[in-house]
Amino acid sequence: MPQITGYEVFDVRFPTSLSADGSDAMNKDGDYSAAYVVLTTDDPALYGCGFTFTIGRGNDICSAAIELRSRPLLGQSVAEVCGDLGGTYRALKSDSQLRWLGPDKGVEHLALGAVMNAVWDMAARRQGKPLWRLLVDMTPEEVVDAADLSYLSDVLTREEALGILTQLVPSRGERLATLQQDGYPCYTTSAGWLGYSDEKLRRLCQEAVDQGYRHIKLKVGASLEDDIRRLGIAREVIGDGGNLMIDANQVWEVPQAIEWVRELAKFNPLWIEEPTSPDDILGHAAIRKAVQPVGVATGEHGMNRVLFKQLFQAQAIDYCQLDACRLASVNEVLAVQLMAAKFGVPVCPHAGGVGLCELVQHLSIFDFIAVSGDLTDRVTEFVDHLHEHFVDPCIVTDGAYVLPSAPGYSAQLQESTLQEYAFPWGSYWAGTGAGKAEQARKLSGVTGAAFAAGQIGDR
Amino acid sequence: MPQITGYEVFDVRFPTSLSADGSDAMNKDGDYSAAYVVLTTDDPALYGCGFTFTIGRGNDICSAAIELRSRPLLGQSVAEVCGDLGGTYRALKSDSQLRWLGPDKGVEHLALGAVMNAVWDMAARRQGKPLWRLLVDMTPEEVVDAADLSYLSDVLTREEALGILTQLVPSRGERLATLQQDGYPCYTTSAGWLGYSDEKLRRLCQEAVDQGYRHIKLKVGASLEDDIRRLGIAREVIGDGGNLMIDANQVWEVPQAIEWVRELAKFNPLWIEEPTSPDDILGHAAIRKAVQPVGVATGEHGMNRVLFKQLFQAQAIDYCQLDACRLASVNEVLAVQLMAAKFGVPVCPHAGGVGLCELVQHLSIFDFIAVSGDLTDRVTEFVDHLHEHFVDPCIVTDGAYVLPSAPGYSAQLQESTLQEYAFPWGSYWAGTGAGKAEQARKLSGVTGAAFAAGQIGDR
Repeated sequence: MPQITGYEVFDVRFPTSLSADGSDAMNKDGDYSAAYVVLTTDDPALYGCGFTFTIGRGNDICSAAIELRSRPLLGQSVAEVCGDLGGTYRALKSDSQLRWLGPDKGVEHLALGAVMNAVWDMAARRQGKPLWRLLVDMTPEEVVDAADLSYLSDVLTREEALGILTQLVPSRGERLATLQQDGYPCYTTSAGWLGYSDEKLRRLCQEAVDQGYRHIKLKVGASLEDDIRRLGIAREVIGDGGNLMIDANQVWEVPQAIEWVRELAKFNPLWIEEPTSPDDILGHAAIRKAVQPVGVATGEHGMNRVLFKQLFQAQAIDYCQLDACRLASVNEVLAVQLMAAKFGVPVCPHAGGVGLCELVQHLSIFDFIAVSGDLTDRVTEFVDHLHEHFVDPCIVTDGAYVLPSAPGYSAQLQESTLQEYAFPWGSYWAGTGAGKAEQARKLSGVTGAAFAAGQIGDR
Repeated sequence: MPQITGYEVFDVRFPTSLSADGSDAMNKDGDYSAAYVVLTTDDPALYGCGFTFTIGRGNDICSAAIELRSRPLLGQSVAEVCGDLGGTYRALKSDSQLRWLGPDKGVEHLALGAVMNAVWDMAARRQGKPLWRLLVDMTPEEVVDAADLSYLSDVLTREEALGILTQLVPSRGERLATLQQDGYPCYTTSAGWLGYSDEKLRRLCQEAVDQGYRHIKLKVGASLEDDIRRLGIAREVIGDGGNLMIDANQVWEVPQAIEWVRELAKFNPLWIEEPTSPDDILGHAAIRKAVQPVGVATGEHGMNRVLFKQLFQAQAIDYCQLDACRLASVNEVLAVQLMAAKFGVPVCPHAGGVGLCELVQHLSIFDFIAVSGDLTDRVTEFVDHLHEHFVDPCIVTDGAYVLPSAPGYSAQLQESTLQEYAFPWGSYWAGTGAGKAEQARKLSGVTGAAFAAGQIGDR
């Protein structure tokens, strides 16, 4: 019986701040990063890869948390870990000492997500299936057993969850056929980063239209004057028929959000994304009420299922943008998808970053086939960055994700990427000032000997 | 001009799980811990001590995050850092890469709180005042400048905050005199940990009554039968006139909380604390409505000011139990105190753990003198554990905190405590299996050389 015999954790960072890729009103200089874990077994052909996404500093903190979260898996039977994905999740999550650091939020939750993403990857590889297929082949009971429904019973009971899934079982095949033919529809954010010039914006919008996209998203919120000019350019390129979305990345106070969005309403945006603090359920509800018919979208910083429960209860959002790494892996994503189906809110997952597109394609495919059964108003984010670092990169054609076919969760990074971009030891970083400073810091970091020798301060 | 020249970070853990101190329905085996930082300057007599509180595993993650959060202070002028406590806080908080890991929650927020607690400690020492006095001597404008009012303008404008403080300025002296005579009232949780026997519970309740306490808190939520028996014992000892509080430490679903608390209502509890997920604002509102006249209290896991804003907006709580370390230091505490004053909700800070009592006494004193102006329904937690490890431990007599008089925030740990309980190098841990395993792990943790030599997996 194979066992989990080890884990390797990598702090992988890409110097994206150099090109303003990913720049927005809140995040001006992110270095897109992954805190990446490989779970190994005594079968060399069987392993699991997972990660959480960050934007640079602190990726080491996430990596350390992942190391701690991985330890309980050592020595466990692969069959038991992969055969009870809900039980494995609950066992890892139940560490009450680590729970104190959240609960269910921040670094510890990101780390739990990374480790469980690797477990799901391993489970799918073990069955020789892409993750979406592993999920589709599970019975409603198995899916509900895997979902984290804790703290949700006031809006979604186990029976309701089973009912949502069961009623769609007979028609799953039709929807699978639809996706196999057309792919899962996506939209692009690659055009609209805040750091791009007007000329680059116009060119990228035109390219997106030419590539078949019917939805384009622009970053806003730094300057109203700039926003008006940039939205004008984008609307001109895509025409009245295309969908334009705007994203403020949390820079506004609630009253300010209402005022600003009303100024931009003339460009007929489909949604305003992250208008204010991601924690502000009642704030989003107030904004939504005030800016209709502009929709309100949020979720990439939606910390856990309890937040989404309340966003649904308070009728605070028109679009649910859950994140495959912010939530604690598939287990928690399933819970949010089920609640969204009950409340009739379309799930349009956040993607981009490092590898988020690779993950969310699986989640959206399963959502349509088995949970929502609907493509109306659904469109999943796609950003054309950093896919070359993945062994099984997502494929987008004519504005749609092509169904992945390789076994696993598409989460594996190329070996050459680890050699080059692991921070601070990889070949890219080793040649930079930041990398050298961090190497020196790490090498001097074993302070135990000094401590034991009494060489600590004497106040 | 003195500068900040260094920082020392310590992962300090106490083996409290051995005695079931601190045991409750969620946290059965916590090892009370502090991720502790000392900011040093080129004046040996001037330094600042701060920490965040955890319950064991993961304290190393917080320590690493504190190290990262401290770096930007190196080389800064002490006068500038301490002369603009709002500006210092905002500068540290504005790191957008670290913000991604929250925002404003989890490990990164705890770390920001620890570092800013140390900055406030330094600022108070520099003026030769206890922290509460530093705050009382600030003008309303200075207090509001220090408070983190971001994302709050829909419920509290700067002008409203100023108004709350200004109207109480003329009468500050009277309230200070009251506290100097009577101390700030507190209650005890030392009696009611879940792991204690009935005999120990009865004895500790009697001791608390004998020591002058009029409020006693018991942990509940593991077994309804046990809860009924234990509450019967406590009520018998303290009589009908005493106040009995109960604390479920988040173990219930919302419907379950309502049912369970109704069963315990016959013991006339003043409040039910943490009935469900600390993130569930709407859940707390539903519970509060259903269990009246039992009050609802929460806050020790209240992650940030945006959560408290909504708890107030939704009329979800009767008592606000903010935490000096869960919130990002005094800067964020001030914002919550100001909102609580506006909404008329009494602030009864969470304490216990390691050093939380030492911190919250300062906050409650300032709250009464300058923000709420009221002691009605206010009582601050006190737990009689681990105070001997502090250089300036809090003093409680006749059920009230005596006003601290030493300069600073009472946050400094004894040097001997660091020598003994720093994990894993301190003398206590070095002799344990857990300590030895962790030492081995840390000493083998410098994987850079192996990485550079290409000794990483080859999938």
